[in-house]
Amino acid sequence: MTDFAWSARADADAGALSSLSRFHEWWSGRLEAHRFEVRRIPFTELDRWAFEPGTGNLVHDSGRFFTIEGLRLSGDGPATWTQPIINQPEIGILGVLVKEFDGVPHCLMQAKMEPGNVNTLQLSPTVQATRSNFTKVHQGGDTRYLEYFWGTGRGRVLVDSLQSEQGSWFWHKHNRNMVVKVTEDVPEHEDFIWLTLDQVRALLRVENLVNMDTRTVLACFAAARPGEPDAALHSTDEILSWITEMRTRCAWRSRLIPLAEVTGWTREADEIGVGDVDHFSLVAVHVQAATREVVRWTQPLLAPRRTGLAVFLSRWIRGQPHVLVQARPEPGLLGSVEMAPTVQAPSEDGIGTGLSAQTEPYTAYVAAAEPSRVRFDAVLSEEGGRFHHALTRYQIIEVGEEFPLAAPENFRWLSIRQATGLLRHGHYLNVEARSLLACLQSLG
Amino acid sequence: MTDFAWSARADADAGALSSLSRFHEWWSGRLEAHRFEVRRIPFTELDRWAFEPGTGNLVHDSGRFFTIEGLRLSGDGPATWTQPIINQPEIGILGVLVKEFDGVPHCLMQAKMEPGNVNTLQLSPTVQATRSNFTKVHQGGDTRYLEYFWGTGRGRVLVDSLQSEQGSWFWHKHNRNMVVKVTEDVPEHEDFIWLTLDQVRALLRVENLVNMDTRTVLACFAAARPGEPDAALHSTDEILSWITEMRTRCAWRSRLIPLAEVTGWTREADEIGVGDVDHFSLVAVHVQAATREVVRWTQPLLAPRRTGLAVFLSRWIRGQPHVLVQARPEPGLLGSVEMAPTVQAPSEDGIGTGLSAQTEPYTAYVAAAEPSRVRFDAVLSEEGGRFHHALTRYQIIEVGEEFPLAAPENFRWLSIRQATGLLRHGHYLNVEARSLLACLQSLG
Repeated sequence: MTDFAWSARADADAGALSSLSRFHEWWSGRLEAHRFEVRRIPFTELDRWAFEPGTGNLVHDSGRFFTIEGLRLSGDGPATWTQPIINQPEIGILGVLVKEFDGVPHCLMQAKMEPGNVNTLQLSPTVQATRSNFTKVHQGGDTRYLEYFWGTGRGRVLVDSLQSEQGSWFWHKHNRNMVVKVTEDVPEHEDFIWLTLDQVRALLRVENLVNMDTRTVLACFAAARPGEPDAALHSTDEILSWITEMRTRCAWRSRLIPLAEVTGWTREADEIGVGDVDHFSLVAVHVQAATREVVRWTQPLLAPRRTGLAVFLSRWIRGQPHVLVQARPEPGLLGSVEMAPTVQAPSEDGIGTGLSAQTEPYTAYVAAAEPSRVRFDAVLSEEGGRFHHALTRYQIIEVGEEFPLAAPENFRWLSIRQATGLLRHGHYLNVEARSLLACLQSLG
Repeated sequence: MTDFAWSARADADAGALSSLSRFHEWWSGRLEAHRFEVRRIPFTELDRWAFEPGTGNLVHDSGRFFTIEGLRLSGDGPATWTQPIINQPEIGILGVLVKEFDGVPHCLMQAKMEPGNVNTLQLSPTVQATRSNFTKVHQGGDTRYLEYFWGTGRGRVLVDSLQSEQGSWFWHKHNRNMVVKVTEDVPEHEDFIWLTLDQVRALLRVENLVNMDTRTVLACFAAARPGEPDAALHSTDEILSWITEMRTRCAWRSRLIPLAEVTGWTREADEIGVGDVDHFSLVAVHVQAATREVVRWTQPLLAPRRTGLAVFLSRWIRGQPHVLVQARPEPGLLGSVEMAPTVQAPSEDGIGTGLSAQTEPYTAYVAAAEPSRVRFDAVLSEEGGRFHHALTRYQIIEVGEEFPLAAPENFRWLSIRQATGLLRHGHYLNVEARSLLACLQSLG
């Protein structure tokens, strides 16, 4: 998994404008062209960012972008939990532009730098734009290709839904996932390349290459394909009733509090952290690069301590591929509970502590799975614009017919077609589940 | 509209266990049996409720039920708006039990007292239960019939979705709307009666009789009926993309703040209010009754100043009934924007001030509509457990083919079948729109 998995799909280049071999050359050129430096700095060296008097929140002096505040979580009992959390109430656009060449759909993909990426550039959607981009708060350049997604001139909309992001790190964050298809000529900027869906899916097996935003849009793209009647284990009405029940049963109540009221987290000159390794630190970085809209800037980032784990158990049931989803509460989710991978943990061993020490009944099974059952296994990155070196190991493990269909009440087998149908709507499948659905598509 | 509209559907009694005439006798008996007194008191006479030091929030000493806090709303500009808001993060159950008698489905309806009702009792779902009911915080009796909706013994679930409530009065409130069908014998308590759907719909035309919770569950019930392919003006994918766009465009950002930080609202001994007649006051009441789980109690209520207005324009398009929905931001909605009636205003003249002075392009049309076009017109109550004498005039006005299909970008014609399909999911149609959909069903 340390190099491009050309062999993942023998036919990945079929009908493509550029071969993956050509992609590789282009990618090396982009890495060469976009050298940049990201270094940790003390919070006092942040430019225009400061801890607000009184609340202690870390805010930008424009009042825009995002803030780092506190979150307090309580349940039916008296115990409460507090932590820092990123509050970014604006909705951004994650958009992939699609156009057919000789009858084969291609996606316009971008080599995009984000300061938190472990490896400079990752393969990103055509557009990753925040509301601040639209309204030009940071006086940067226009966002390339935004006109295809925003305003009156855009093409045919194939995917358009609001999807959540990490509920342990973001407060109520969701972004607009879009796929737009055009027929007219589109100018190809040197940082962009047309790839077929099969090519992007083949590249998913490369470590830390296809970024989180691409993965979530790809997962939703499948939802746009017309489907036949499904023979799923549970009807979709039963699945909707189950997730409603799980949301009703969840006793967690969370709310924003001032960062100054978060307890147990210590503030050093260059880090705000807590003893628990399952959590994260807040750090500050200075970024210097040529490809961003602004050439130099500073910003805070959320830095997880360990590589996380997200695993789907998959199984054929009634002739349909299914995955075992978990109704998982996360304190920052808008709807408190979404469907998550079978195992989702803050460390590769699948074992969490504190808040993340929830019962994970399938952890032992996953740890002991025969290698032949592991259909997908790659370490991929979470969003580099807000997270520093945030890595997750994504695995898909296919179980056989001897594996029990019966599951704990907070788990359900969901057919892939049901999952992609639910992605027409927001807030059913969390971002880790969506990444895994994109990975599943790569299995062909 | 001041008496029961027996004539609304000539056949409303068809197949019913009890005629509407018998219902009327039963209802008179219930009114007689449940005399009670609700009187305004100063906040200092509230028992176990108090203004919390520091925040100024009005809270119960158990930390449960609900709190009255502040909300701050900001947009792209520097202006902000603050107001009090009810924060009740727990999800309650609004459940209607259904059973067939001689092949005709009947709903078990309840004569239920709520302290804010103008007229003591209203016709309520089988179960209206808060999480506090489940967990017995107020040491009251068990909630009757709850076992059919909660736990392992329940019947077949026909409706099960989380639906929002008033976004100007509640912070992120949603309740679980359920319809459960059983076949076994169900004991009939004297405060409950089996009515057919047609009978409940006929009773919707009676002023302040069918309560808000019944209306929202009834609206969702239609969603459970299998539908044929629809010939709607816009595809459902187009409608979903449009509401996503409207949510993305909405610049409103709202958050909870301490009630003490709300500006412009004055606190008297028995009322917290503001000059604007489109808003509400907060008041406190003492309740004494025989039918509630606790015989006497005190609580705060939110008291609107005027009778509101909610109007759907309806039109036949391509042989299908459609309504003209508005993408309407409300500061307390979990998703910021939901689909609302064509006109939704805090006063019967359709004209609001302040926050509610949004452009309402159809207000003049509604005010001048020919009486023959008004298919439904009744004043109905909002939730009497939290609101004091909150009345809304609900109207459905059917327009002809000469009425333009073109509409401002924040409006769309939605087929009734699309609307009911969307009600399988939460947070698409606001509570006023759902009330009007229930009223539409009564037109036969």
